[in-house]
Amino acid sequence: MTFRLQRHAINPVLLPDPTSDWECYNVYNPSVIHHNGLFHMHYRAQGLDWISRIGYALSTDGVHWNRLRQPVLEPHDGSDSRGVEDARVVEIDHTFYMTYTAYGREFTGTGKPTHLGGGILPMVARSQNLITWERLGPIVRGEDNKDHVLFPRKIDHRFVALHRRWPHVWLARSDDLLTWQEADMVPIYQPRPDNWWDAKSVGSNGAPIETPHGWLCINHAYAADHVYRLGVILLDLDDPTQVIRRPTEPIFWPEELWELRGEVPNVVFSNTNPVIGNQVYVYYGGADHVIGLATCRLDALIDYARFG
Amino acid sequence: MTFRLQRHAINPVLLPDPTSDWECYNVYNPSVIHHNGLFHMHYRAQGLDWISRIGYALSTDGVHWNRLRQPVLEPHDGSDSRGVEDARVVEIDHTFYMTYTAYGREFTGTGKPTHLGGGILPMVARSQNLITWERLGPIVRGEDNKDHVLFPRKIDHRFVALHRRWPHVWLARSDDLLTWQEADMVPIYQPRPDNWWDAKSVGSNGAPIETPHGWLCINHAYAADHVYRLGVILLDLDDPTQVIRRPTEPIFWPEELWELRGEVPNVVFSNTNPVIGNQVYVYYGGADHVIGLATCRLDALIDYARFG
Repeated sequence: MTFRLQRHAINPVLLPDPTSDWECYNVYNPSVIHHNGLFHMHYRAQGLDWISRIGYALSTDGVHWNRLRQPVLEPHDGSDSRGVEDARVVEIDHTFYMTYTAYGREFTGTGKPTHLGGGILPMVARSQNLITWERLGPIVRGEDNKDHVLFPRKIDHRFVALHRRWPHVWLARSDDLLTWQEADMVPIYQPRPDNWWDAKSVGSNGAPIETPHGWLCINHAYAADHVYRLGVILLDLDDPTQVIRRPTEPIFWPEELWELRGEVPNVVFSNTNPVIGNQVYVYYGGADHVIGLATCRLDALIDYARFG
Repeated sequence: MTFRLQRHAINPVLLPDPTSDWECYNVYNPSVIHHNGLFHMHYRAQGLDWISRIGYALSTDGVHWNRLRQPVLEPHDGSDSRGVEDARVVEIDHTFYMTYTAYGREFTGTGKPTHLGGGILPMVARSQNLITWERLGPIVRGEDNKDHVLFPRKIDHRFVALHRRWPHVWLARSDDLLTWQEADMVPIYQPRPDNWWDAKSVGSNGAPIETPHGWLCINHAYAADHVYRLGVILLDLDDPTQVIRRPTEPIFWPEELWELRGEVPNVVFSNTNPVIGNQVYVYYGGADHVIGLATCRLDALIDYARFG
C-alpha cells in the first residue's frame, strides 16, 4: 500500500517579492490556520540582510494569497538577532499559540554555542489576533532543539508539545507553557537506520491531527542523500508518548524544479497541515525558496497511517 | 467657546503607493475600527483605472500601518463598476457591518441617471472577519444618496442609520438591514443658509458616539467656497431624530498643504471617529489624495457639543 500527497494545480502558491527588502530572496516554511472563514498564513521570509522574519498572508480559498507588506514578527534582541523561523500556529481554548525557532548571535545555555557562534531557542508565543505576539519563552535552552509544535488541545489538563532533541523526537508537557521540566520530557521515536529515506534525521511537521484512531502526525526526514521526504506516524490518543504505528514508506518528496533547486536543494519542508472538512492541506517550503501546496483526503491518510 | 481637533505629529499616516496598480494615485476616506487589540482600517484607493477599491491595513498604535497588497472589496457588477467608496465599519452584536457607496455605470432606480450617465447606491455589507464581505443591498435606489452610516447598536431592537437625501441628513430604521421602508425615514437636519461654513451641503461622518448626553455625531459641510469643514451635532439618545444641540462653529478645516492640494482641493473628509479610552481618533482623507489623523479628548468634545 502506497500513498501520495497530490500537488495543487496552481503552484507555487507564494513566491518571493523581488521589490521587497525583507522578502525578496526566499519565502518558505509556512504555518496555515483556518479561522473565521479565512486561511491565515504565517511564513518565513528572507530578504537583503538574510534575516528570517515572519510574514502574514490571508486567503479565502487557500490558494490565492493577499500579503501584508510588513512582517508581523521580527528579531528583538540577541537571542533572535539572526532571525525568527518556521512558525507553527495552533488555537487552544480561543487563544492562538505560535511555536517558532529563534536564531541569535547570543547563546544562552551552558557549554558551547551550537550554531555558527550563536544559538537557537525553541520558542513559544501567544496572541489573541494572529498579528501581535507575546513571547512566552523557550521550551529548553542551550541545545540544538527545534521542530517543536503544540498539540491542538490540552491532554489531561496540560499543554503538550513535540520537539526534537536530536536525533530523537521528544514529547514534553507543561502546565502554563512557561515552565517545561526535564522530568516531563520523554523521547518517543527516532531515525530508522535500516530504512531507506529516514535513516539520518527526523522531525515533526504541523500540529498533530486528532482522529478516532490516534494523533496523526506528519513528519519530515532524510537519509544519507539529504533529500527531505515526508512521512506519517500515529500516536496514542491518551498517551501520545506511545507510537501506535509508523508506516515504512514516505508520502511526499521533491519532484518539481522549484523543490529540487533553490536556496537549499531537494527540500520539501512542511510545518503545517490544517484540516478543512475531509481535506488535509499540506503547505510546504520548496527548496527553502518558495511555498507549495499539496493535499490529500483525511480518511485516506488515516487509512495509510493505520494499514500502510 | 471654540474647539479644534489636533493633527497628529506624524502625518499623513498613509500615502498612495507609486508601485501599486490599484492604489498609486489616491488613498483616502478611511474607516477605522479598534478590535481585538488592533486598529483595522478600510480605505478608499484609486489607481491606474480610476476605479475606487477598498484596501485594508492594520496598526498597533493607530499611526503606523501595515497594508494588505490587494484590496478586500472591489466592483463586482454594473451597479459598482466605477467603484466602491467611503467605507464606514461598525460592530453590532459581534458582527461587522460596512456601509459604502457603490458607483456604477448602471442606474437602477426610476427616472434619469444621477451620476454621469450612471448611478450610486448607499450599500450595506456584512462580515465576520473584516476581510470577506457579504453585500446585503442598498438603503434606497435611484437617487443621489450617500454618507450613510449605521449607529453602533440597535435602538428599540431596530438597526438605525443616518443617510443623506440631499440637502437633508435623514434617519432610517430597519429590522434586518435588507428592508428599509419609506415610512421609517425622517429628515433630521440640513445646511444652515445663514451660517458661514455649512450653508450649502452637510453630511454625516463616522458612526455616532454614544455618550450620557446623547449621540455625538461629527459631520462635514461646505458653503459657497466649497471648503470642507467638520462640525458636531448632538442627537437624543432614545429618539435620535431629535437634534439636541448644534454648535455654530466648525472644529476642523484644511490647513496643511496635503489638505489644500490633491485630487480635489480644500478637502478634509472623514468617515470614522473611533474612541479608545477618552481619545477620539478622527481619520480623514486629505484632498482626496492621502490619509491624515487628528485627535481630541472625548470629554472635551462632549463639552463643546453641549455648550460650544
